[in-house]
Amino acid sequence: MDDRQALQDLISGIRPLDRHAEESAWRRLDSLTKPPRSLGRLEELAARVAAIQGTDRPTVANRVILLMAGDHGVVSEGVSAYPQAVTVQMVTNFSRGGAAINQLARAVDAELQVFDVGVAGDTSGLEGVVQRKVAPGTRNLKTTAAMTMEETLLAVLEGAAAAAGAVDRGVTLIGTGEMGIGNTTSASALTAAYTGADIDTVIGPGTGLDVEGVARKRDVVRQALLRTQTRDADPLAVLASLGGLEIAALAGVMLGGAARGTAVVVDGFIAGAAALAATALCPAARDYLLASHRSLEPGHRVQLDHLGMQPVLELDLRLGEGTGAALAMSLIDAACEMLSGMATFEEAGVSGVDAG
Amino acid sequence: MDDRQALQDLISGIRPLDRHAEESAWRRLDSLTKPPRSLGRLEELAARVAAIQGTDRPTVANRVILLMAGDHGVVSEGVSAYPQAVTVQMVTNFSRGGAAINQLARAVDAELQVFDVGVAGDTSGLEGVVQRKVAPGTRNLKTTAAMTMEETLLAVLEGAAAAAGAVDRGVTLIGTGEMGIGNTTSASALTAAYTGADIDTVIGPGTGLDVEGVARKRDVVRQALLRTQTRDADPLAVLASLGGLEIAALAGVMLGGAARGTAVVVDGFIAGAAALAATALCPAARDYLLASHRSLEPGHRVQLDHLGMQPVLELDLRLGEGTGAALAMSLIDAACEMLSGMATFEEAGVSGVDAG
Repeated sequence: MDDRQALQDLISGIRPLDRHAEESAWRRLDSLTKPPRSLGRLEELAARVAAIQGTDRPTVANRVILLMAGDHGVVSEGVSAYPQAVTVQMVTNFSRGGAAINQLARAVDAELQVFDVGVAGDTSGLEGVVQRKVAPGTRNLKTTAAMTMEETLLAVLEGAAAAAGAVDRGVTLIGTGEMGIGNTTSASALTAAYTGADIDTVIGPGTGLDVEGVARKRDVVRQALLRTQTRDADPLAVLASLGGLEIAALAGVMLGGAARGTAVVVDGFIAGAAALAATALCPAARDYLLASHRSLEPGHRVQLDHLGMQPVLELDLRLGEGTGAALAMSLIDAACEMLSGMATFEEAGVSGVDAG
Repeated sequence: MDDRQALQDLISGIRPLDRHAEESAWRRLDSLTKPPRSLGRLEELAARVAAIQGTDRPTVANRVILLMAGDHGVVSEGVSAYPQAVTVQMVTNFSRGGAAINQLARAVDAELQVFDVGVAGDTSGLEGVVQRKVAPGTRNLKTTAAMTMEETLLAVLEGAAAAAGAVDRGVTLIGTGEMGIGNTTSASALTAAYTGADIDTVIGPGTGLDVEGVARKRDVVRQALLRTQTRDADPLAVLASLGGLEIAALAGVMLGGAARGTAVVVDGFIAGAAALAATALCPAARDYLLASHRSLEPGHRVQLDHLGMQPVLELDLRLGEGTGAALAMSLIDAACEMLSGMATFEEAGVSGVDAG
């Protein structure tokens, strides 16, 4: 079976949510010992996971962050505050447990699984880093397509396989993480291409660019978009042109999670670009995605508006790695525990409104 | 030692935060393997807990929700959507593990400890409910002082003792919870009294009052404020007049936590009224308080603005019980794990900005 067909099979395996389970969840939520709807967004999260899992007693007890790492040829244009070597250095840091995502994943009782899908350096000696390198980084998206169609398909399928593997071992909630110096440039270009938004609304400082750096980034994205056909384009061709092996892999994680009936928590701006790609490839995947937070990167708002997604958190994060997804996981877990574990008014013998 | 003196001793035991530890925490935060300040509010939370605990390696691994329950004489005025019996019914529900706070506390790995400081019914047969009843509910605050000064002092000291007991057994983060049918009326009156805000800005539907109910509540609060001296008044006398045995106890939890150098997570509108009382009694206590969420109850915004506190979450919650505090605890834990567990750029051998 060729990879194009494998992607088509993946997409056709994504079903609409179980609206019956969702209605059942809302009936149950309204019968639990609390004023109706008094847990606000927590109730919405619980009902969504119920619809995804097809049960009014959902659980997300087994959680994983799938972190995809890859490098970007466009860093040669001076679009990142950090040198490219930081990608492999940070993957080393993930392997040794020293990064922010290691602490946050542990704090919310989520496993962290790191995949090299496109790091320029060698990560093969690093404990726990899954070797799935499609290519040692992308090409410079300013002047040429960042990835071939074959690389793009392969990266998407690697992500989907990672999600399927997690579900096979009992994972009930997947979070997306990433590492890739230069990837906000790719994410900005993808956001403009998929949403049609003006370039100026999707360019930001990333991990800490100065004013000149942001201007260079804007120019790079403008040139990349000039050479990319975006109107009525094949979503996969857009992804190939503007790149990100780790972004393609994350789009695959989202499609793979959705195909297996599993909720996927979307981290920040990079993951948001992957969500745009995933939902362009398969609009039905959207309902399986939960937005974790609204980052400070300006284009993130453009993405969330386009996707019609309301984030759970607003904590001025701009790190990535899956840190926002990890934090949101604890709230989603609490929401499911609430729906599945609470007593009803009848079970608890508690009087309802006006019953006294 | 009389109770007045005990309160004075408690208050004089509350020290300013350790600004040296806070500065050390910020230096450490800026040396960790992430772009400086890229974890936004999470870094602020970590630095605050560092200042509270006097170390740049804070931990909040041992967490408890101290839930204070009490009844309100003012329910005879028709100011609640639920009958008074629901207070004891919900305490029973807490004891049996069926309420929202039971699920949320478990989800964030926090102990839940329930105190009867003023329930009208008998809770003595309920497993795990600590018996500290100061009085079987308050008087009707519309027409008379809700509590005597002696009751008020005793309730505050019971709360402080609960906090001290928690710290003695190793708790490093305290959350506030409450149950008391009618207590949004008391909280509204206290908010107007302590902040000087217009009554219309502090009255809301509580657990689900209709328009007529809200109008009755407004009239009750107006009359209560007419008979209460608020300008230049003794903060304890204001608390006694407008009541809430559980609110007084929560003010005590906050003072007791602060006196023992322990951060206290403030839940919603009821806990916010207690925070106003605690900080009126001892302004230095404020820095030990972390606002968990902004509730839908309109007066909560008035409280937070007066206290100068920015909540961590905005999830449209309006339940109470400590549910917002529990949810915020997981974020505060993640913040401390991040600060205490991450590697620095130097330790991890990661290149800094412009180092490439």
